[in-house]
Amino acid sequence: MKLSISQIKYVKSLHARKSRQKYHNFVVEGEKMCGEVLRQGDLEIELIATTQEWADANRSLLKVHERRLHIVSTKELKRVSLLATPNQVLLVACQPEHQFPGHIRDLTLYLDGLQDPGNLGTILRVADWFGIEWVFYSPDTVEVFNPKVVQASMGAFLRVKCMAAEFGDLKEAFPGIPIYGAVLDGDNVFKMFLPPAAILVIGNESRGISPMLQQQLTHRAAIPRHAIGGAESLNAAVAAGILCATFRNYRVSGL
Amino acid sequence: MKLSISQIKYVKSLHARKSRQKYHNFVVEGEKMCGEVLRQGDLEIELIATTQEWADANRSLLKVHERRLHIVSTKELKRVSLLATPNQVLLVACQPEHQFPGHIRDLTLYLDGLQDPGNLGTILRVADWFGIEWVFYSPDTVEVFNPKVVQASMGAFLRVKCMAAEFGDLKEAFPGIPIYGAVLDGDNVFKMFLPPAAILVIGNESRGISPMLQQQLTHRAAIPRHAIGGAESLNAAVAAGILCATFRNYRVSGL
Repeated sequence: MKLSISQIKYVKSLHARKSRQKYHNFVVEGEKMCGEVLRQGDLEIELIATTQEWADANRSLLKVHERRLHIVSTKELKRVSLLATPNQVLLVACQPEHQFPGHIRDLTLYLDGLQDPGNLGTILRVADWFGIEWVFYSPDTVEVFNPKVVQASMGAFLRVKCMAAEFGDLKEAFPGIPIYGAVLDGDNVFKMFLPPAAILVIGNESRGISPMLQQQLTHRAAIPRHAIGGAESLNAAVAAGILCATFRNYRVSGL
Repeated sequence: MKLSISQIKYVKSLHARKSRQKYHNFVVEGEKMCGEVLRQGDLEIELIATTQEWADANRSLLKVHERRLHIVSTKELKRVSLLATPNQVLLVACQPEHQFPGHIRDLTLYLDGLQDPGNLGTILRVADWFGIEWVFYSPDTVEVFNPKVVQASMGAFLRVKCMAAEFGDLKEAFPGIPIYGAVLDGDNVFKMFLPPAAILVIGNESRGISPMLQQQLTHRAAIPRHAIGGAESLNAAVAAGILCATFRNYRVSGL
């Protein structure tokens, strides 16, 4: 079955946040990530557009999705794609719905106003690598289902639970949980006590953690700078990576 | 003095690698980074194109460059710019020439075939933060003076010395230096002995370190994964950040 004109219009509309929010779904592109989504099987699939070639090579994955399958030419695929380089498959999936957790017993991230989709995707990948179950983010953070975030996350959105949340609601739900914030003028994170269960706050790329949220931190963690001068900060995703690695290896390293 | 048509053509040509290599210079954009270049004063400046507004606000910085200064409208600046968002200033600077070092007494990076300009820029920023003097890179790595690298580096190119080099030449110049490689199946870096002077190799985003170079490694370092499954790797810049932080805080943390 080919894609109808209205379907093409529909898929293209999902490149915009407004449309994704209206339909509560999002676009996944590329052989690797689409294959992963289909293999994992957790997401509800609405539509798959693929070349005959990819469909032939992945029959077992596509079997249960026959009614949602559309065979298209590379040219047609390009019309609905956001990627610059040609690809073989694109799918529309429903956004996963997670229930707000009853407790936090592990390292949990809170992203405060992150704006760069690449950074958000890379942080989800960090969370995925370090087995972090929950990533919360402030309502003004770039949307998790933005195609650039999905792409940069390398499929992490399949395993890490992401949820928009006001920080106040988190604090109320988990009273007494230690709240660590990544700040430039904090204590050396390599010399700090790091508990297994905590919320780690990563701030906006240029402004850092908002003043309101800074007041909520119970610990201010800094990655010590070893330069004589110049460097003003680390990239937000790199900082998140270093801090998560330090939390995760706190016990191992016997600090 | 306005920009002539041939100057506009010339600046625009510098968006291409070929032209940058021919003229041995590169483009820096934006108020923050241009201000930093001018304040630091190490780079030879060939041309500055700025709005009257920015020129007025930065007279002291521009004084010595009067003959190279071109006052342009925002619209004209946009014609020669690569940035999507409007800016106030752009400059053309000569590529810094570094002399191959006589010795390596500190942590040094070698980038093996990195392809993403954002990753390279972010790694330079990591090097800058951790006070790493030298970043060498294989000839097939994305060019350091690519505008996207320059932008992502946040000015790190002013402080970190970057040089293309064959790995064999490095090895010959610094016999006996420990060579650590970031690999997925290596030893836990948090339990490894990390010497103050070493070369740390970061591989290509998808292929990792090339097989030839893998044979040269004296130590294979891995960032342990804490996930049950799924995540295949960390972003190259994040991995570089975690490894550099671990090297730098090895003594501090008393591992």
